[in-house]
Amino acid sequence: MEPRISLITLGVADLPRSIAFYEALGWRRSLPDLTDTAFFQLGGIILSLYPDLHTDAGVPAGRGPGAVSFAHNVRTEAEVDPTVERLLAAGGTLTAASRPMPWGGRTAYVADPDGFLWEIAWNPGFPLAADGTIHIPEDSA
Amino acid sequence: MEPRISLITLGVADLPRSIAFYEALGWRRSLPDLTDTAFFQLGGIILSLYPDLHTDAGVPAGRGPGAVSFAHNVRTEAEVDPTVERLLAAGGTLTAASRPMPWGGRTAYVADPDGFLWEIAWNPGFPLAADGTIHIPEDSA
Repeated sequence: MEPRISLITLGVADLPRSIAFYEALGWRRSLPDLTDTAFFQLGGIILSLYPDLHTDAGVPAGRGPGAVSFAHNVRTEAEVDPTVERLLAAGGTLTAASRPMPWGGRTAYVADPDGFLWEIAWNPGFPLAADGTIHIPEDSA
Repeated sequence: MEPRISLITLGVADLPRSIAFYEALGWRRSLPDLTDTAFFQLGGIILSLYPDLHTDAGVPAGRGPGAVSFAHNVRTEAEVDPTVERLLAAGGTLTAASRPMPWGGRTAYVADPDGFLWEIAWNPGFPLAADGTIHIPEDSA
């Protein structure tokens, strides 16, 4: 099984509310005529917002945001706080303030309208490539 | 804010159990000397398993797998069922059997040991690039 994630689907409660939040980050919705889902192209993967995820997946309705976070890494430490501000201005909720971490970087966590967590991180040990992808250093050794 | 996800972190309950599951897919753990977390390089992003996510993120412990799924898309319809079998052999639990979908593809959902959902999908409308990345067709129009 090839190591690959193609889409991340969030089972949001209120699709227009979630679209408004992610568009407020400056992210452009793809295929905007769709009414039951929303897609955002994020590099080589797709973020999908889809209230009926539980039906397709065969799991009970009412699951919350869960024990999962999505990291948006930035290239410099100075970019962390303005990126957090951008998420808060879009309607996010700060759950862990920006602070230096034991592993040498800086990070903060912001919840989206459903409580899905975004980690805004600068990690000097895992630098971003020019195209925005991230690679664990041993893999390029 | 650039459209980018760098890492996906799952707040798993039992790190060795989760490592065993993902390694059983044939995925190779990076930096295997780490004891509090596990990393898997998936194309240009990283999958992280981290039991202490809730502490870092400032949210209550005990969140479950949540209303989120991760899609692993394959290149042909014939690859869906063998990929599902691979996940089941690794210890996954089928939550929605492989079936044709109204949008023209085929999909199934399998839960990992914590209940995190993996969608195994073939979508002829969103073909994979040679490097495994996926792009919404309008974006290349």
